[in-house]
Amino acid sequence: MAYNKINLTMLTDFYELTMAGGYFENGMKDVIATFDMFYRRNPDEGGFAIMAGLEQTIEYMKTLSFTEEDIAYLRTKGIFSEAFLDYLRDFTFSCDVWAVEEGTPIFPGEPIVTVRGPIIQAQLVETMVLLTINHQSLIATKASRIVRAADGRSVMEFGSRRAHSYDGAVYGARAAYIGGCVGTACTISDRDFGVPALGTMAHSWIQSFDSEYEAFCAYARQYPNSCTLLVDTYNVLKSGIPNAIKAFKEILLPMGCRPKGIRIDSGDLTYLSKKARKMLDDAGFPDCQICASNSLDEYIIADMLRQGAPIDSFGVGERMITASSEPVFGGVYKVVSINKDGVEIPKIKISENVAKITNPCFKNLYRLYDRETGKALADVITLFDEEIDDTEPYTIFDPEHTWKRKTLTNFRAVKLRKQIFRKGALCYELPELGAVKRRCADQLETLWDEVKRFENPHSYYVDLSEKLWNCKQELLHRA
Amino acid sequence: MAYNKINLTMLTDFYELTMAGGYFENGMKDVIATFDMFYRRNPDEGGFAIMAGLEQTIEYMKTLSFTEEDIAYLRTKGIFSEAFLDYLRDFTFSCDVWAVEEGTPIFPGEPIVTVRGPIIQAQLVETMVLLTINHQSLIATKASRIVRAADGRSVMEFGSRRAHSYDGAVYGARAAYIGGCVGTACTISDRDFGVPALGTMAHSWIQSFDSEYEAFCAYARQYPNSCTLLVDTYNVLKSGIPNAIKAFKEILLPMGCRPKGIRIDSGDLTYLSKKARKMLDDAGFPDCQICASNSLDEYIIADMLRQGAPIDSFGVGERMITASSEPVFGGVYKVVSINKDGVEIPKIKISENVAKITNPCFKNLYRLYDRETGKALADVITLFDEEIDDTEPYTIFDPEHTWKRKTLTNFRAVKLRKQIFRKGALCYELPELGAVKRRCADQLETLWDEVKRFENPHSYYVDLSEKLWNCKQELLHRA
Repeated sequence: MAYNKINLTMLTDFYELTMAGGYFENGMKDVIATFDMFYRRNPDEGGFAIMAGLEQTIEYMKTLSFTEEDIAYLRTKGIFSEAFLDYLRDFTFSCDVWAVEEGTPIFPGEPIVTVRGPIIQAQLVETMVLLTINHQSLIATKASRIVRAADGRSVMEFGSRRAHSYDGAVYGARAAYIGGCVGTACTISDRDFGVPALGTMAHSWIQSFDSEYEAFCAYARQYPNSCTLLVDTYNVLKSGIPNAIKAFKEILLPMGCRPKGIRIDSGDLTYLSKKARKMLDDAGFPDCQICASNSLDEYIIADMLRQGAPIDSFGVGERMITASSEPVFGGVYKVVSINKDGVEIPKIKISENVAKITNPCFKNLYRLYDRETGKALADVITLFDEEIDDTEPYTIFDPEHTWKRKTLTNFRAVKLRKQIFRKGALCYELPELGAVKRRCADQLETLWDEVKRFENPHSYYVDLSEKLWNCKQELLHRA
Repeated sequence: MAYNKINLTMLTDFYELTMAGGYFENGMKDVIATFDMFYRRNPDEGGFAIMAGLEQTIEYMKTLSFTEEDIAYLRTKGIFSEAFLDYLRDFTFSCDVWAVEEGTPIFPGEPIVTVRGPIIQAQLVETMVLLTINHQSLIATKASRIVRAADGRSVMEFGSRRAHSYDGAVYGARAAYIGGCVGTACTISDRDFGVPALGTMAHSWIQSFDSEYEAFCAYARQYPNSCTLLVDTYNVLKSGIPNAIKAFKEILLPMGCRPKGIRIDSGDLTYLSKKARKMLDDAGFPDCQICASNSLDEYIIADMLRQGAPIDSFGVGERMITASSEPVFGGVYKVVSINKDGVEIPKIKISENVAKITNPCFKNLYRLYDRETGKALADVITLFDEEIDDTEPYTIFDPEHTWKRKTLTNFRAVKLRKQIFRKGALCYELPELGAVKRRCADQLETLWDEVKRFENPHSYYVDLSEKLWNCKQELLHRA
């Protein structure tokens, strides 16, 4: 679902339109092209990324169409023919699309989305496919790291005010939820996507009363069943915690309620949380949770927990919603095959930078799981029609150092992508967001800890089938 | 103008609503509160930032209202009274708002936006004011740096595919234009905001033809008046440039057209541009421009120009649209005064971190310009009703080291903020985007070069008036 329900057809790099015009005028509009989206490097030197954004990509493809306003605008550019503008007016998306499902761990080089269809269409969607999946995968991946650092404690997404505009906040909260956050501060993401929204008070609440104690009492009376008090407006240990304890005792207990928690938003969170824990325990509130916030990320959280900070939940803002340590997910969208007059011609992009050479051909993607442990062993990129027979041993090899080989037995081969559109018709049933979130948690369980490490994670195998490898070599030698 | 025309009232941190409910139930809904937005540190260790995002903030405030759907959703949370929900249903924005105009250089600590009105309203807008202005100011500031590095050469915004979702791309392109970019690749930003959109071709255009030369010829025939060819699909010097020159000669010249340019998107751009320049000159195309793109930013551009790269224009993508070197503009929104029963009570937020102590009071902001040079000398934050008489000498002093004093004469004092809303009614005439862009360029001219340096820029003076300083000291000593 798209919360803003607007047509984003014109959110496209202008070159998609000049190329479209060119293909049209050159009689190439019915050439069938195949494009892959893939990325080259995991953010934060991590071992993998989390796929997200497919639902909004689908929404976009479903609504792709040019309005009369768009046509009139394009006419003003003075470079497009009326015949081409008529073509755009009648434009109907008719491509085949395959994609990895949201919440799935993905690895560099894998065709996470493939679009195959008339070249104008398959080209046109580039900007939005990349924009949508790059953004949400970036945030889901970062959230997954932060949630893993919190080691079972809950993490809330608190970043709307520092997000890169409105959709950045709303879809960022959605992606963070997929990545493992328990909820968000962003109300509209709850209303429209069902990401649970929570929140209590800012320092201004405290400051608008004559005293911190009065502010706490007013809040406790108002929200006795969800009473989390912000304790760092004046002084956490000398004022905030004592006043909170007093309000808990004098307001909540007589109402038959227990406190939910306190939140510390500044200062040395490790030191303060230890002192606060003791004060709360001594006052008879061992069940009162401690929530910490203030420029947190996976490194700070892991470090605080290593030092024994008794924090129960984390509110994470700017560093998650912008993935500030590495705010770019570098997915690219490259042509891999052109079909002219029924002849399929695989395409490769050569580069002096070996890492930038693309994998040619219309392809498929398999994940091989160990039948015994359930763990993912390797991914294999194949030609589209290749089947991996998992009743037989299967040998994988490193595509660069081909003498590195490994024969797998007792494994299960799963096609990692689902077909999403068939000739422009949606043929995929979108899962509920809760199911996507569970899928993400379940799929993380299939990865070995070595792949999930923050420091020097193991490089998961992503290999090419022998047929695909041969095709690539042939194209490389020919070039 | 908001390109998506949707009501973003619910794009708010949930705590704004719990606080609103609390103020309502505590009989405080008519308390008048004054909030300031300010930021604490310039991005990238720069000397200033560029204000942007006001137009969208205004659009939001104008349309602020709760729909029946919003009310129904809030009721499901089970913590709000029907009386409060009725209040929200009838909610009408009635605050006074002052703000620095878009395109203006701003400095840390300055009240760039002030919202004064019923506490529920003034509090509620926090999330969207911060989200909108933080995002666009971040991108306008980054764009301004990159444009200054390009030293007169044109810079295009190319980042949609790596933006943080749709609004990040669209409003990012708008902000980049304010900051000095000449245009964008983002078509919708042209259609809806008049940011000129340009674009030519991707590598896939070249690859979809049987040869690079044929692809170039097809493009040249199609767009003879705006023919910029991408020359790095195979090999810039051995293939791209020779083929481009051939297509220019064989297609464009016979049509009576001249080439617009070539674009290099990979490799060593300095080396390649020098070689390309010579080849183009030798072929009789000294007017053919060289455009460079590929993970550029202000540092890389400055370095290339220092080495004499003959590049005429730059396409800048991910590092501008995400401000990747520092993707967070840390604007905050703090209560500075509460008016209860007609009594104004200034508020201060104390912190052990001195830099985090706020400036209390309902305030105003002046910029003092030298009448002779036109240059900005200092900004002074005053009490709201204070007038700076620029016919008399005026002494400014460092708010921390008060013995550092300077007496200014022959200066012009200008109130840097305009009133935007008066009791909820818009009283500000929104300038055209082109005028905002010109304002930004003009205002940059008023800053000394020392403030505009990338490395160790001079700290521009932002001082407090004596009355404001006294008020702050009194509150600090009382606390």
